Amino acid sequence: MTISASHEAGSIAPNSSFAGAIEADAVIIGAGPVGLFQVFELGLLEIKAHVIDSLPAVGGQCVELYPDKPIYDIPAVPVCTGQELTDNLLKQIEPFEPTFHLGQEVTTVQRREDGRFNVETSLGTQFITKTIFIAAGVGSFQARTIKVDGIEKFENSQLFYRVKDPAIFEGKNLVICGGGDSALDWALNFVGKAESVVLLHRREDFRAAPASVAKMKALCDEYEMQLITGQVTGFDEADGKLTEVKVTGADGVTRRVPLDMLMVFFGLSPKLGPIAEWGLDIERKQLKVVDTEKFETNVPGIFAVGDINTYPGKKKLILSGFHEAALAAFGAAPYIFPDKKIHMQYTTTSPKLHKILGVETPVFD
Amino acid sequence: MTISASHEAGSIAPNSSFAGAIEADAVIIGAGPVGLFQVFELGLLEIKAHVIDSLPAVGGQCVELYPDKPIYDIPAVPVCTGQELTDNLLKQIEPFEPTFHLGQEVTTVQRREDGRFNVETSLGTQFITKTIFIAAGVGSFQARTIKVDGIEKFENSQLFYRVKDPAIFEGKNLVICGGGDSALDWALNFVGKAESVVLLHRREDFRAAPASVAKMKALCDEYEMQLITGQVTGFDEADGKLTEVKVTGADGVTRRVPLDMLMVFFGLSPKLGPIAEWGLDIERKQLKVVDTEKFETNVPGIFAVGDINTYPGKKKLILSGFHEAALAAFGAAPYIFPDKKIHMQYTTTSPKLHKILGVETPVFD
Repeated sequence: MTISASHEAGSIAPNSSFAGAIEADAVIIGAGPVGLFQVFELGLLEIKAHVIDSLPAVGGQCVELYPDKPIYDIPAVPVCTGQELTDNLLKQIEPFEPTFHLGQEVTTVQRREDGRFNVETSLGTQFITKTIFIAAGVGSFQARTIKVDGIEKFENSQLFYRVKDPAIFEGKNLVICGGGDSALDWALNFVGKAESVVLLHRREDFRAAPASVAKMKALCDEYEMQLITGQVTGFDEADGKLTEVKVTGADGVTRRVPLDMLMVFFGLSPKLGPIAEWGLDIERKQLKVVDTEKFETNVPGIFAVGDINTYPGKKKLILSGFHEAALAAFGAAPYIFPDKKIHMQYTTTSPKLHKILGVETPVFD
Repeated sequence: MTISASHEAGSIAPNSSFAGAIEADAVIIGAGPVGLFQVFELGLLEIKAHVIDSLPAVGGQCVELYPDKPIYDIPAVPVCTGQELTDNLLKQIEPFEPTFHLGQEVTTVQRREDGRFNVETSLGTQFITKTIFIAAGVGSFQARTIKVDGIEKFENSQLFYRVKDPAIFEGKNLVICGGGDSALDWALNFVGKAESVVLLHRREDFRAAPASVAKMKALCDEYEMQLITGQVTGFDEADGKLTEVKVTGADGVTRRVPLDMLMVFFGLSPKLGPIAEWGLDIERKQLKVVDTEKFETNVPGIFAVGDINTYPGKKKLILSGFHEAALAAFGAAPYIFPDKKIHMQYTTTSPKLHKILGVETPVFD
């Protein structure tokens, strides 16, 4: 990805470029819960949206990080998993037929002479859009890597930052690094399935759920797995294969731990990525919104909703993102329908909204 | 209800009064969806709440006005009725064991010398509370009455503003006034059940759903009911009974319409009621909040959430009320725990919140 200064939203691109681009009223960057609900709120105002996400599936952080973990604080949903939340939102936005462009990152956002924006993704998909909604959560998030010189060459063969296919780890000697839920959950999961499981954590405190920690300790007591307190400080290889890691403990002693696979769960490092290059006001890796009336950024026509934005009182709650998406939709409408007065209508009573939603206006009888 | 100037929140009551009152951390005024979710957000911060509502049941406007009508814009809930929304919220707040005080209106809110508030209801229930959350929607809402001198004496015998028991109207000659959904829905409902149905509306346009209007017109064409364009300008009685109304049409002609029952659906008139007397900043019958960071009113310790508040960009959406309730809870916490630092925690991952919610911290296996 190359970003030149001339590609910033603040600069002007001639209207002539982007021939063949998709013409859009709204482009949403991020297909997490807030991006999906942005589709809904725009849809109620009869604005169709294109949704882009760097991940290959919708759901964002919720599905990527905790698809099966229960969430309790979605209003009127006593409990749901990240996957269920996503599925419900997908069902809710069905009437609005959003177009998804997945597995690609937005690389370029550039203001055109006609006031609209040129948007281009890493796969070369091009849009000319009147408005942009950045619902990118923590940005394109990437696994924090292990800092040992030269070990990166084993990535995806013997060094893994995520589990795509659990089967490849079965019957193997595993070293699992980390002290959070992912490390503990996977360690517990592979006990009995892998040949051996060593959990490696740099200190004795764990961020993971206490129940998982207790279970892990019980398994260690039963010699079903092993816990080592220390850090990987080196490795050995033979015939191009990683054969062992060197683990230095708190006592300063370095031990050799042979292995087949090294799994590292140090958490995700949020990365704004190209978003940082679009001329938007940024404060501590978050997009500042001009007001809490429209959640518009300093660049008119670009809105920021959900975890990626910041304003006084901001709490990173999914429900706050939902509220922001609603107000941003109203804030954006004048860019799309400059001559139309936008009225608030209620889904409960408005025949117009019923038509848009594709439902029958109920008749009492 | 008597409100004297000295009962305003701005004045100070001695600490000695309100002996025997319930001591509370938080009193929520209004048991609609936003009031209920306020219980949840306070609960996550370990703040227990008392909830007061003038209606005899929880659910507020949602349940009172449209218990069975579908709502489509609650995030991640593709469709639910007002009753289902309320039921789900009640389930969600179960772990926090709120205490409900229903069928009573808050009449007095008065600041105490110790900084807390004395709160008293129309039933004489007294509270001493550190914080107050006004989630009163449109206020205590009342049916708009028909303006004909003397006709009020028939209220609840032959003049009705709501239907509690549909059976009492069956077999009767009904005149139903209004042009909105309630008037149309009930007119359609009673065709075939009542002896006769006359719908009376002052003009030819209807606010009701077009499908209902079409159905009503079809029934008129079939002589199953009758539509009169005009207004009630007088009435006749005999032996203390309402016998007919005088209806003046757009043509200036007054007709006599005999009846057994007069049903009036002119909509609800929101009434702030006693809330207007507590020294809070009010703008067009709404409570102004100082900022959108905490949704606190001009009286420190009193928060306003949901449809009753106003701020730049305010949309009267249930989901906005939910967001406001979350931020108000964080804003209120320092009044209740002045020495505690409040950390944001997530229901998905926090063992502490799991304990509060009474759920198991999940273990992967």
